[in-house]
Amino acid sequence: MPDESAKWPRRGLLRGAGLALAAAPLRKALAADEPAQAPPRWMTEQGDTVADYGMPSPYERAVIRRIRDKQKMPTVISTMTPLQDLVGIITPNGLHHARCHAGVPAIDPDRHRLLVHGMVDRPMSFGMDDLTRFPSVSRLHFLECSGNSKFFKAALIKPNWTAQDTHGQVSCAEWTGVRLADVLAEAGVQKGATWMLAEGADACAMSRSIPIEKALDDAILAYAQNGERLRPENGYPLRLFLPGWEGNTSVKWLHRLKLGTQPFETRDETAKYTDLMPDGTALQFNFVMEVKSVITFPSPGKDPKQPGFHEIGGLAWSGRGRVARVEVSTDGGANWREATLQEPVLPQCLTRFRLPWDWDGGPAVLQSRATDETGDVQPTREKLLAARGPNFIYHYNAIHSWRVAPGGEVKLAV
Amino acid sequence: MPDESAKWPRRGLLRGAGLALAAAPLRKALAADEPAQAPPRWMTEQGDTVADYGMPSPYERAVIRRIRDKQKMPTVISTMTPLQDLVGIITPNGLHHARCHAGVPAIDPDRHRLLVHGMVDRPMSFGMDDLTRFPSVSRLHFLECSGNSKFFKAALIKPNWTAQDTHGQVSCAEWTGVRLADVLAEAGVQKGATWMLAEGADACAMSRSIPIEKALDDAILAYAQNGERLRPENGYPLRLFLPGWEGNTSVKWLHRLKLGTQPFETRDETAKYTDLMPDGTALQFNFVMEVKSVITFPSPGKDPKQPGFHEIGGLAWSGRGRVARVEVSTDGGANWREATLQEPVLPQCLTRFRLPWDWDGGPAVLQSRATDETGDVQPTREKLLAARGPNFIYHYNAIHSWRVAPGGEVKLAV
Repeated sequence: MPDESAKWPRRGLLRGAGLALAAAPLRKALAADEPAQAPPRWMTEQGDTVADYGMPSPYERAVIRRIRDKQKMPTVISTMTPLQDLVGIITPNGLHHARCHAGVPAIDPDRHRLLVHGMVDRPMSFGMDDLTRFPSVSRLHFLECSGNSKFFKAALIKPNWTAQDTHGQVSCAEWTGVRLADVLAEAGVQKGATWMLAEGADACAMSRSIPIEKALDDAILAYAQNGERLRPENGYPLRLFLPGWEGNTSVKWLHRLKLGTQPFETRDETAKYTDLMPDGTALQFNFVMEVKSVITFPSPGKDPKQPGFHEIGGLAWSGRGRVARVEVSTDGGANWREATLQEPVLPQCLTRFRLPWDWDGGPAVLQSRATDETGDVQPTREKLLAARGPNFIYHYNAIHSWRVAPGGEVKLAV
Repeated sequence: MPDESAKWPRRGLLRGAGLALAAAPLRKALAADEPAQAPPRWMTEQGDTVADYGMPSPYERAVIRRIRDKQKMPTVISTMTPLQDLVGIITPNGLHHARCHAGVPAIDPDRHRLLVHGMVDRPMSFGMDDLTRFPSVSRLHFLECSGNSKFFKAALIKPNWTAQDTHGQVSCAEWTGVRLADVLAEAGVQKGATWMLAEGADACAMSRSIPIEKALDDAILAYAQNGERLRPENGYPLRLFLPGWEGNTSVKWLHRLKLGTQPFETRDETAKYTDLMPDGTALQFNFVMEVKSVITFPSPGKDPKQPGFHEIGGLAWSGRGRVARVEVSTDGGANWREATLQEPVLPQCLTRFRLPWDWDGGPAVLQSRATDETGDVQPTREKLLAARGPNFIYHYNAIHSWRVAPGGEVKLAV
């Protein structure tokens, strides 16, 4: 049995510590040894066939992505993963969040090419079959939109927000592709090249400038997620993937890389994705998504239904490496207990944390505070707002609070 | 950069070793610095919206499960995962193989209950909400049908089989649920209880007897796969999950557990899922899926298109623990080279292996040979057939061979 199980209280311990599972709703003593009721319909008739490509049960139809902040332009889309409905660390591909600046292009993979040019010895154009011949890598990584948790502006906050609304622009998958460093080595990076333009093949040619160090370090040209080819909204047939960096830099539908000596100052890194400082200047190229966490149970819509034992659970992540520790408070930050982390804990990957909680039925404020392997700790909301000033929009990573009312209803607390 | 990258040859090394990527098809020198062609259609018009629940690109519609050995009864279904089309270790839920004995029941989760009875102190009935209150665990595990690779009978083998046909009844997911040991502790396992009946809520009440040691060790009552609730064909809303054991023992649509002092001798462990020995007696309860592997590239339908550099890739797994080593031969077993294993290597989990291959364009026979952490090694086909005799059907795990013809066509070699 894996290690983590030893940390969980067993029955005797649950009892002794007053953490016993509530008796009434959890069990129903049976008079007879065999079930008494008539069998349900699905045991009396043959079932359905199995589809070529399966879908969730119709009973799960409420578990869907939702579009955030509908824009005037219907192809400016930001969808959010239903974190409160999910468990573990993998996000199923159908629910991976997606941010699209000009909708989802319907790309024919046989006609898609990646151009590598600029400061390279040999300008090159690669088809998908060329790229998949390179040695491949697969890694589990989170992907987070820099605009996830738009909590800097109090006016934007809606009190009925769920975990999907507050944190749903983060997801996690096993990404497979080839090392960008290998492809750039084929083209030959010229001395003095310090920046790389990455451009997508969508109608707005979404593009970002990437420092060459990142390109040569752990960048992937990804063509698959969770085993199968990328989903269209996640960049089919090819995307850049920059572990730990804000999502928009992992340019989707990637068709062009150009090397140069300075940032290319594209629209997407001047008009957007910059952080306005208190003095009115813009902080550009603030790439790394810092340490962050959110409790997914209990959370709005996922109320504890009665006092007694519950398992608090949630997700933590850091663009700087592994999550080292997650502490949980049930009293708004006065006291903290260390949660168990689900193994394996991987760098730049969602990490599931869990903590037993004996809810006394009274009011509670649930918080999680993650620390990463570099020692970075999530700040309080007050500290973050004071440090970043009133103009910030992106990279909000403060400790998040859910308020549990005596009846069990969970609401956003800011 | 992760460790594995250091093991891959870099450009200079590729050249020096004669492993250079073939020049002609891989690159197209460009006269100008900027792309010359007209932009593709998808760059000139706004794209589609993002669905509530996403699906693969229409260009991937050939990547589907296929039904194996169609039976007279249409609800006796065995589907196979398209391993040759997948990368990494995660199987997307829509492509997870499924074996159904009476079709897929359409279970209402609010009406589904799990009965725990027999030799327990307190017979109990659990609803889904009761079960999800228990402490949860998530683990990445393979699931393999004991009838995967029906290679014992030469008459059954078809020369045009792909990796999907030969090995597609294995898949891998992050399974989440509660420890069966915790649930049994609530009911109170009586002294002397040594076996547990696990029964499904499908129309055939598929059922197996499980030794109590396994039930109390690492067994999970699983309600989710890859983050979301189980797919209907994989047991929605609840299944038993027994890491490393033959798939049918991980009873789907689980609605009853009964503890007793001996096996329950159900139809599914007498008329099926036994191994007929040379002397005509039946070996029952042969649970563990032993160490095994398959090369997914190159493989039938995934031919190397020209000589030069290719990456041989595939999957290895063992029901006894971690994969320790995978060796690959390109000459039918005369010489072996050790492949790189994709991290993390997890117990009872698919493990991806990779090896660079400089194909000279001549005939080749590709084989992989996995060893697990207990020291078990895949046997040759000849040794396995000699050891198990002519009546065996299940638990075939011999070294598998693909034959590459001079033109690159890959075919099954037996």
